[in-house]
Amino acid sequence: MRILPAQEFDLRREVEYGSPEQNEAVKQIVSDIKKEGDTALLRYTERFDGMKLKAAELRVTQEELKAAYEKVEPSFVEAIAAAAANIRAFHQKEKRNSWMDLQPDGSILGQIIRPLKRVGVYVPGGKAAYPSSVLMNVIPAQVAGVPEIVMVTPPATGGKAGIDPYILVAAAEAGVSEIYRVGGAQAIAALAYGTDTIEPVDKICGPGNIFVALAKREVYGAVDIDSIAGPSEIAVLADDSANAAYVAADLLSQAEHDEMASAILVTTSADFAKACAAEVQRQLAELPRREIAAASIDSYGVILVVDSIQEGIQVINRLAPEHLELMIEEPMAYLGLVENAGAIFLGPYSSEPVGDYFAGPNHIIPTNGTARFSSPVDVDDFIKKSSMIYYSKQALLENGETIMELARREGLEGHARAIEIRLQQEAKADRKAGE
Amino acid sequence: MRILPAQEFDLRREVEYGSPEQNEAVKQIVSDIKKEGDTALLRYTERFDGMKLKAAELRVTQEELKAAYEKVEPSFVEAIAAAAANIRAFHQKEKRNSWMDLQPDGSILGQIIRPLKRVGVYVPGGKAAYPSSVLMNVIPAQVAGVPEIVMVTPPATGGKAGIDPYILVAAAEAGVSEIYRVGGAQAIAALAYGTDTIEPVDKICGPGNIFVALAKREVYGAVDIDSIAGPSEIAVLADDSANAAYVAADLLSQAEHDEMASAILVTTSADFAKACAAEVQRQLAELPRREIAAASIDSYGVILVVDSIQEGIQVINRLAPEHLELMIEEPMAYLGLVENAGAIFLGPYSSEPVGDYFAGPNHIIPTNGTARFSSPVDVDDFIKKSSMIYYSKQALLENGETIMELARREGLEGHARAIEIRLQQEAKADRKAGE
Repeated sequence: MRILPAQEFDLRREVEYGSPEQNEAVKQIVSDIKKEGDTALLRYTERFDGMKLKAAELRVTQEELKAAYEKVEPSFVEAIAAAAANIRAFHQKEKRNSWMDLQPDGSILGQIIRPLKRVGVYVPGGKAAYPSSVLMNVIPAQVAGVPEIVMVTPPATGGKAGIDPYILVAAAEAGVSEIYRVGGAQAIAALAYGTDTIEPVDKICGPGNIFVALAKREVYGAVDIDSIAGPSEIAVLADDSANAAYVAADLLSQAEHDEMASAILVTTSADFAKACAAEVQRQLAELPRREIAAASIDSYGVILVVDSIQEGIQVINRLAPEHLELMIEEPMAYLGLVENAGAIFLGPYSSEPVGDYFAGPNHIIPTNGTARFSSPVDVDDFIKKSSMIYYSKQALLENGETIMELARREGLEGHARAIEIRLQQEAKADRKAGE
Repeated sequence: MRILPAQEFDLRREVEYGSPEQNEAVKQIVSDIKKEGDTALLRYTERFDGMKLKAAELRVTQEELKAAYEKVEPSFVEAIAAAAANIRAFHQKEKRNSWMDLQPDGSILGQIIRPLKRVGVYVPGGKAAYPSSVLMNVIPAQVAGVPEIVMVTPPATGGKAGIDPYILVAAAEAGVSEIYRVGGAQAIAALAYGTDTIEPVDKICGPGNIFVALAKREVYGAVDIDSIAGPSEIAVLADDSANAAYVAADLLSQAEHDEMASAILVTTSADFAKACAAEVQRQLAELPRREIAAASIDSYGVILVVDSIQEGIQVINRLAPEHLELMIEEPMAYLGLVENAGAIFLGPYSSEPVGDYFAGPNHIIPTNGTARFSSPVDVDDFIKKSSMIYYSKQALLENGETIMELARREGLEGHARAIEIRLQQEAKADRKAGE
């Protein structure tokens, strides 16, 4: 692992947005689904997934869900249920109520907070089908109160027919209400515009390959979408008090994700830097995914040596990493200085996988420096707000002239007259009542 | 105004995304600013705004701000200050605290909520320069605690040199910290990437022409952006108890915005429909902006007659209008049934301009059906969240095996080992301590 002095090191990586050919292909698929519905959906499922299905076979049945529970180990069901309970408990605390502000003049202002009505969750096939990601996408929506949560996932993976039973069990534990065996851009288009079989949704989330990502961008506006995640990142800020073996293991747990993943150590100690680099080498040699992890470490792994914890935090704030571990003697003393980090892990026992799988906070977290302005997925991603204005007669009579002045200043006489006609008619009615 | 039975009437309008030439032009401008900074910024300002400026002249001075107060009527300053106070009070109630959840095993989980550090607000030149929009964009950021709020606006409007003094006063009352006289795509690029004169921001908001909108899309990812607003909309749900003159005035106040604006009346009464259509004609004839309003009413205005309030609400939920007025006898009895509407105005005195200018809730509200899944601008648009995980040793020892099982199920052995190495070393340390 390279050891560098911390200077103008910058993490930003170019994110792929697809070739013109891929864009064209996706536009065609989306337009076909919009026009032909199920017919196009079944045609593309046969072409891309090699499965000839009827419309009535698209939806996964209760029997299949039950069968999935028979196929997985009971210990897995227990583990996923325990994780789901923690994630649910944490997200429950994010919930907010609609509120009102009752004013002395009788007016009531407020904000109405409601769940979205129907949400679609994409789950990729193959090796990227992570039960933990099903929980992290579905549970916030469910806690927000979304009544209909629809999962879509490719019908067959790498020649094997059928959906991974671990995914089905995770979906059931998380509280998915419908599952359809469709994948790719065609699944995204079906969720956005609806077909005879699949009702359209209000928002689509979940990770996918480049075709899925392009399709989400294509349908945005008709529905909401989540943000498109870049490669995963960890930054560890460590001092002499840290355990080099723990830090190295955490760096590698990030590096094993994919070759674009990034693992960065920022440390106040040159000795610790060397010890940790050696530990990374030692542990890397024994890792099953060592080729991926080694490529990630070579390209995006780095150890930055700084003069002080404060300087280290400045480096962190510039990186704005997805995950940050504070492996320093008194992490709470520095938490207030961290401005930009998606998830912050404090102390020696808060290894990143604790958060990836189990503790409760969401593991879908802004990447590539966007923690500067965006946030981990939470209940807020599945609600919508409406403003409420109940203006009293007294408030209108008192403030009408001011409102008219502001409207006329903007050249919007029609706005002023909507107020003026009320002031005139109410004054007339009051005079009449007074006679 | 057309009177139709409410059936499958749908409001969706095609939103313009710019021609390929406009897209190319914007890409070039953004790339030039990114490379050349101030040099390109001054060059484009000369080309598009006809103003030859030096870098040192870009920032609006305190003296200019003071001079602006001399140029506007004192009653305007009072009106804008009163509106700002109301908007500030309402948005203050949206604020949330960071929170922690302390668990019996000693772990602490939480969500840290912080303001963005630096926000840019675009204010268009010409007739679209609305002081009220300055308040609505700036105050939520300021209430969120954003320490640096930067406004940009074209240096000259329609041949007239200088920035509109009403805009400058609104900016000062709202709490803008820096103002630069730059506009167009070049201003957006300068905010996103920074120049020697303008520090880069974390988020850009505010309305603008097609070049501004395209530039915002182009820089998205480097910074956050707000959503791009479509034409304005109002839907009024009225029964026999409503005042036709009030309803007509409110419909027209929306229609006068622009020819693409939409004003829709949904009513249970055929008689009221006719009375209101007549009132619209009568009031329209006397409106200064009657040509714009008439074009809007002709293209997008409609009166839909329904059998019941419940059916009317169903129509509203399908429209998902930006603004909704409930001009019915007991509006609160139906508020709970309204699922999709950006801002809801209840009763005869809650004319839409009350909310556009004065009451307190934001007037930047989702358009074109997106109230199904998005929300008016509020304090949440200017904060970011970080998850916090402080896991205790006890929690790790108790849950480590479960976490490892979930990681191994996903084929991520490195994740499992980050936990395993801790379980092993802590057990060893505990044994040693017990000896």
